[in-house]
Amino acid sequence: MPRWEQGAEERLREAALELFTEHGYDNVTVAQITERAGLTRRTFSRYFADKRDVLFAGSDRLPAALADAVTQADPELTPFEALLAALERVGDAVAARTAPHAAQRQAIVDGSPELQERGRTKFAAVADALDAALRQRGASATSAGLLANVGVALFRTAFDRWVAEPDAATCSARVREAADELTRALSPRGHASPSVQETRT
Amino acid sequence: MPRWEQGAEERLREAALELFTEHGYDNVTVAQITERAGLTRRTFSRYFADKRDVLFAGSDRLPAALADAVTQADPELTPFEALLAALERVGDAVAARTAPHAAQRQAIVDGSPELQERGRTKFAAVADALDAALRQRGASATSAGLLANVGVALFRTAFDRWVAEPDAATCSARVREAADELTRALSPRGHASPSVQETRT
Repeated sequence: MPRWEQGAEERLREAALELFTEHGYDNVTVAQITERAGLTRRTFSRYFADKRDVLFAGSDRLPAALADAVTQADPELTPFEALLAALERVGDAVAARTAPHAAQRQAIVDGSPELQERGRTKFAAVADALDAALRQRGASATSAGLLANVGVALFRTAFDRWVAEPDAATCSARVREAADELTRALSPRGHASPSVQETRT
Repeated sequence: MPRWEQGAEERLREAALELFTEHGYDNVTVAQITERAGLTRRTFSRYFADKRDVLFAGSDRLPAALADAVTQADPELTPFEALLAALERVGDAVAARTAPHAAQRQAIVDGSPELQERGRTKFAAVADALDAALRQRGASATSAGLLANVGVALFRTAFDRWVAEPDAATCSARVREAADELTRALSPRGHASPSVQETRT
C-alpha cells in the first residue's frame, strides 16, 4: 500500500459521513466522497462495495458473530441466558468498533427510508442466525424463533441507548438493563414494580 | 356494481394466489390475474393498487388497529397487559379475515425477498404505532419501544403458529402461549421450567 493511502478507509468513511450529513445520503456520489478524501475511486472500491457499504461495513458479520457467541456461551446457561450473554459480548464489540461515528451514522440512517430498510434486512438475518443457534442449544423449534426476535429487540434497544449516551453506560450494561425492564414488564401483577403498584392502591 | 362483478374482489384474489403459487410471484402480471378471473383491469384497479396489494390489502390498517386496541384496553391493565390484550383481539380479527388463504399467502411471501421486505416494513410501522400507544398508557419513553418490538415478535410468532395449524388453537390462544413461553424463558434460574431444571440436576 502506498504511504499516502495509509488510513484511507477511515478518511473515506469520515468524508462520506460528513457529506451524507451535509447534503443528505441520497444526494451524495462516490465521486464526491473520493474527492473530499483526496483519494481515487479505485481506492474506494478496495474498501467499500458502494456508498451504502460505508454505513454497513462489518454488519454482514453480525449474524455469525452473534450466533457463534450463543453457541460458545457457558453450556450451563439456559438458551435465553446464552442469548443475553451473546448480546452483551457482541454489543460491546460493535460499540467499540463504531464508537467514533455511531451517533452521526444513526442520524443518517434514520433520515433515509432506503437505509432503514437495509437495517431491517440486516436484523432479519440476525434473527435467523440466532434462531438456528438457539435450537442448537436445545431451545424448541417453536420458541427459538420467538427468543431470537426478542433478542433482536433487546439488542437494538440497548444499542440505541448506548448511541444516545455512549458515556453513561456500556452497551452490555444497556443489554442487561433492557432485559431487566422486559422481565419486570412481563411479571404477573403480584410482582409488578412499585410504581405500578402505587397507581393501583 | 354490475351483477357480474359481484364477488369480484374475492375472484381476483383467488386468481392471483393461484397464479403466484403456480408460476412464482415475480412471473405473474396483473393482466394474467384479470384474465383468469374473467374481469377487467379497471375492475382490478377498483380493489387493488397493484399485484402486491392483493397480498397486503388491509395491512395498512394494522398499525392503527393495534394501537387503538392498546389505547382502548381496560385502564387497570399495565402497559404490557394492554399490549397483550390488543394482540389477542386484533390477532383473532386478522385471522378471521385471512383464514381461507392464510397458508397459501404465507408460502408466497416466504418465497419472495421483495415480499418479505414489504412484510418487515409493515411490522416496522406496527412497532412505531404500538410504541406511541404504549407511551400514552404510561410506559416510559425508553421501555415503550422495547415492549412494542417484543409485541411485534409475539404477534408474528402467534400468527405464524396459527397459520401452520389453524384448527389447533385460535390466534389469541397462540398469543398467550407465546407470552407464557417468553415469561418462562426470562424467569430467573430458580423459577426455570421443570425440563430445564432436570438437565441441571
